Amino acid sequence: MSEHLQSWREGAARTAIVGFVESVTTGHDAVPSEQRIAVFDNDGTLWTEKPMPTQLHYIVEQWAAAARADPALAAQQPYKAAVDRDFAWLGGAIDKHYAGDDSDLHTLIGALVRTTVNLSVDDYQAAVEAFYRDARHLTLARAYPTVVYQPMVELLRYLEANGFTCYIVSGGDRDFMRPMTVDAYGIPPERVIGSAVGLHYDTTTNDVRYGEHFDFFDDGPEKPLRIWTRIGRRPLLAAGNSNGDIPMLRYVQKHPRSLSLVVHHDDDTGRGDAPYDKGAETVLGEAGTSGFTRVSVKDDWASVFAP
Amino acid sequence: MSEHLQSWREGAARTAIVGFVESVTTGHDAVPSEQRIAVFDNDGTLWTEKPMPTQLHYIVEQWAAAARADPALAAQQPYKAAVDRDFAWLGGAIDKHYAGDDSDLHTLIGALVRTTVNLSVDDYQAAVEAFYRDARHLTLARAYPTVVYQPMVELLRYLEANGFTCYIVSGGDRDFMRPMTVDAYGIPPERVIGSAVGLHYDTTTNDVRYGEHFDFFDDGPEKPLRIWTRIGRRPLLAAGNSNGDIPMLRYVQKHPRSLSLVVHHDDDTGRGDAPYDKGAETVLGEAGTSGFTRVSVKDDWASVFAP
Repeated sequence: MSEHLQSWREGAARTAIVGFVESVTTGHDAVPSEQRIAVFDNDGTLWTEKPMPTQLHYIVEQWAAAARADPALAAQQPYKAAVDRDFAWLGGAIDKHYAGDDSDLHTLIGALVRTTVNLSVDDYQAAVEAFYRDARHLTLARAYPTVVYQPMVELLRYLEANGFTCYIVSGGDRDFMRPMTVDAYGIPPERVIGSAVGLHYDTTTNDVRYGEHFDFFDDGPEKPLRIWTRIGRRPLLAAGNSNGDIPMLRYVQKHPRSLSLVVHHDDDTGRGDAPYDKGAETVLGEAGTSGFTRVSVKDDWASVFAP
Repeated sequence: MSEHLQSWREGAARTAIVGFVESVTTGHDAVPSEQRIAVFDNDGTLWTEKPMPTQLHYIVEQWAAAARADPALAAQQPYKAAVDRDFAWLGGAIDKHYAGDDSDLHTLIGALVRTTVNLSVDDYQAAVEAFYRDARHLTLARAYPTVVYQPMVELLRYLEANGFTCYIVSGGDRDFMRPMTVDAYGIPPERVIGSAVGLHYDTTTNDVRYGEHFDFFDDGPEKPLRIWTRIGRRPLLAAGNSNGDIPMLRYVQKHPRSLSLVVHHDDDTGRGDAPYDKGAETVLGEAGTSGFTRVSVKDDWASVFAP
């Protein structure tokens, strides 16, 4: 069955994956297929997240447009950073979050929510689809739906060929991911779990619209809760790459026949999206001691992106 | 394809269903199968809900047990009603909700949440499974998983045979439904949408546990929000039976090729679970004027339950 994993080199990671799949799908104690659930973080696990997550690129463009329309905004963060293309401030907000300081993240999320207040989910979807069509990754200069990790797409297909159902469980906005996940990963919208802005129902137009408040950030201990809410089962396989994935990896690991994978960005592409350990120090430290299986991009993947 | 609808009599409802399915599945403008989503209310739509919803029966038993263990509780509502088997008080709380007064419902929900504080979702599942095995419907004297409406189960199978994916969207507790929906309806846990108690993640045991607060009541305008959250598409078919289903029925109805069904309990079984219009006055009134298709239990169904 390993013809599915063509971009994976022989090694401990590939051996662990194939051994896991064979152990849960064969023999008298095979796990029933409805229980073969796999969950994948998105940014940094299924596609590139540096120099900044795709969603941040999108939102920076929204803020820059808002600042052009209302110059008073341009003096405030995060609009100022957007206009100045000050990615250091924006990346810093994420880094501070991982260091335990959410002050800039709150500023950022507040401004994020303001971009969609009262927008219908359908109109947001159309705006995001246009972004995926037109935007280019900042350093790789490719359309975002093409900066997905080819070995991980092969892993999704390999799992599906063995009766698994795969879900995305990301800190990214659920509705920002949904317009690209079918084409890029073969994962339909009902299997995309992510952060969420609060919704309200418009009884005049019979549409679902975004509200004024952020609902939840699907990271850290929130991930297992959202997995239960949406799926109603403990998965068999989890894959992540950052400290925010630890609770999900451990939740899955409690299943006695599970596999928890950590993607380690130890390769240097020279294109500005790797290598890095930042935000992953703890989970990488744990990979050696906690039974998580480390996937080395440098050693375990023969290629990162599709040609 | 109508061999699937053996318990449905010829008539306007059956004709509308078959015509709808043929129109969205055949011809050059057939709706792609991934967009063929159908959503079903549960209590009163897929199974009986009188003289009281199944979940209330379960929770009454929990409260009575709590009051036996702590006599101070037995003087308070809803424990008093549970000990006295005062179903009038309990049913009244639901009726008052539909009349716009949630005071008793809040008392009831507060006591409901207290039954599961810190319980793991797995332990709750085991408790609910035991209830479904042992409990009997109060007037029909059958196990609850057998008081499902046979014509609606046939409708689920008919839709699936035509490429639809069916979901439950109920005001009932999501995790109370999940242990019975596969066997009774063929609907897996990931397609059960319902009300929810807040969750927290226990990093010591790596389990998902219930918290101290109710999260949301999946009724009325909440239903379309939860449909979007979970499915990410506007469904093509909705079925309900009470006023709380109106926003869901209208949300679906906005799709130009949709069908919205309202089950009308106009039959008299003589067994204490029908007829009734209470809680459905508005939606039944609208069935004639708003394009909802009325399903008469008396006229459209040849039998209500499987033998």
